[in-house]
Amino acid sequence: MLIAKIVGSLIATLKTESMLGQKLLLVEPFRVSEDRATMKTTGRSLVAVDTVGAGEGEYVLIVQGSSARATPETQPLPVDATIIGIVDAINIGQQQVTL
Amino acid sequence: MLIAKIVGSLIATLKTESMLGQKLLLVEPFRVSEDRATMKTTGRSLVAVDTVGAGEGEYVLIVQGSSARATPETQPLPVDATIIGIVDAINIGQQQVTL
Amino acid sequence: MLIAKIVGSLIATLKTESMLGQKLLLVEPFRVSEDRATMKTTGRSLVAVDTVGAGEGEYVLIVQGSSARATPETQPLPVDATIIGIVDAINIGQQQVTL
Amino acid sequence: MLIAKIVGSLIATLKTESMLGQKLLLVEPFRVSEDRATMKTTGRSLVAVDTVGAGEGEYVLIVQGSSARATPETQPLPVDATIIGIVDAINIGQQQVTL
Amino acid sequence: MLIAKIVGSLIATLKTESMLGQKLLLVEPFRVSEDRATMKTTGRSLVAVDTVGAGEGEYVLIVQGSSARATPETQPLPVDATIIGIVDAINIGQQQVTL
Repeated sequence: MLIAKIVGSLIATLKTESMLGQKLLLVEPFRVSEDRATMKTTGRSLVAVDTVGAGEGEYVLIVQGSSARATPETQPLPVDATIIGIVDAINIGQQQVTL
Repeated sequence: MLIAKIVGSLIATLKTESMLGQKLLLVEPFRVSEDRATMKTTGRSLVAVDTVGAGEGEYVLIVQGSSARATPETQPLPVDATIIGIVDAINIGQQQVTL
Repeated sequence: MLIAKIVGSLIATLKTESMLGQKLLLVEPFRVSEDRATMKTTGRSLVAVDTVGAGEGEYVLIVQGSSARATPETQPLPVDATIIGIVDAINIGQQQVTL
Repeated sequence: MLIAKIVGSLIATLKTESMLGQKLLLVEPFRVSEDRATMKTTGRSLVAVDTVGAGEGEYVLIVQGSSARATPETQPLPVDATIIGIVDAINIGQQQVTL
Repeated sequence: MLIAKIVGSLIATLKTESMLGQKLLLVEPFRVSEDRATMKTTGRSLVAVDTVGAGEGEYVLIVQGSSARATPETQPLPVDATIIGIVDAINIGQQQVTL
């Protein structure tokens, strides 16, 4: 899975039928910085659906590929990126990464 | 999913049988710019099939991998990239990204 | 899907049984050039099986991942890249990309 | 599969239901150095679930994609990266890579 | 599929049960050089299982993703990279690439 930050949302009025009503979140995958003290963006942009009620600015856990459909909410959807958790803390050794 | 811009189309007369009659669109994945005000191309080229009637110049939502077959139209097709929506707007905080 | 050019072929006498008799083509994924007038190589090398009788020097459409097995010919094969069409033309706006 | 080093762990209180109780490990994919004597990080960050009881600092074997669900423990989970082994040694020719 | 060279092997005593007894090979994906006369490494490291009895120093054909499980030997395994053939020769036009 990837760690990503929710940076915004998308509006897409015209969608394939099964996606109607699905909230589309704009996320950026992040990685741990070289000094392992903070997170830094990879610069990539992904769109994910949400199963946990996450909001803008939060770090989330993203599952990709066919596994993105392995939740009750996303099973029938044509999606390849799903938010499956909200990241509260990342611990490296005795340190906590600043989120 | 990826945000991509439709830049053109492909003609492929000789195709595997199930793809006959399928329109093939040339798309470029885009990402949000560093200042988060506009979109910029990733420089990559993909070919996608369409389920929503999108046209050249439009930003669309692309699903990849086996999930590209998780729509009624694409279920029997050997495709790994499907357009599942037309992007009307991208919102980051209180700002709207220029499309 | 990807646009790729067939640059050669592979000989692999010792193969898993289901692949015996399968022609293996060496392909290079291409992308549209920055000025959108020509195609340029990505420098990557892939090996694909063929369902349409394509030949060296031709631009073809490649499907990857589990969808590479979604054709009658490739359904039982351990393949992750299949040629599903021969590209005759790529149109961007009113221009045709030089192939 | 990838070789990765476990560098930490994640806390995600709010998770999709099937993931409750699953330990989330932060891993960095590594590759063999140019001189093939040591391992070096790729700089990427992944989150994986564990089937073998691996701990921080260990090199592990990671399976990705739908195959990440092909173990008894992970079969029902929405995961795309699973630890399936702990790497004891890597041998290149007569040399052992320093881990 | 990818062309890769077998550069070594891994020992992982503690493995998920279905992987016990499976030989783990360290491979490096290769690509054709710019002048198309030789092969050059991509610098990446992958771990693959073997269905054909390949050995260190040989160029092999690797299938990735869920298709890595589409052989009789690997069908029940949590693997995403499988060796399905040994590359004897690569031909580009009238030339043979030096392996």
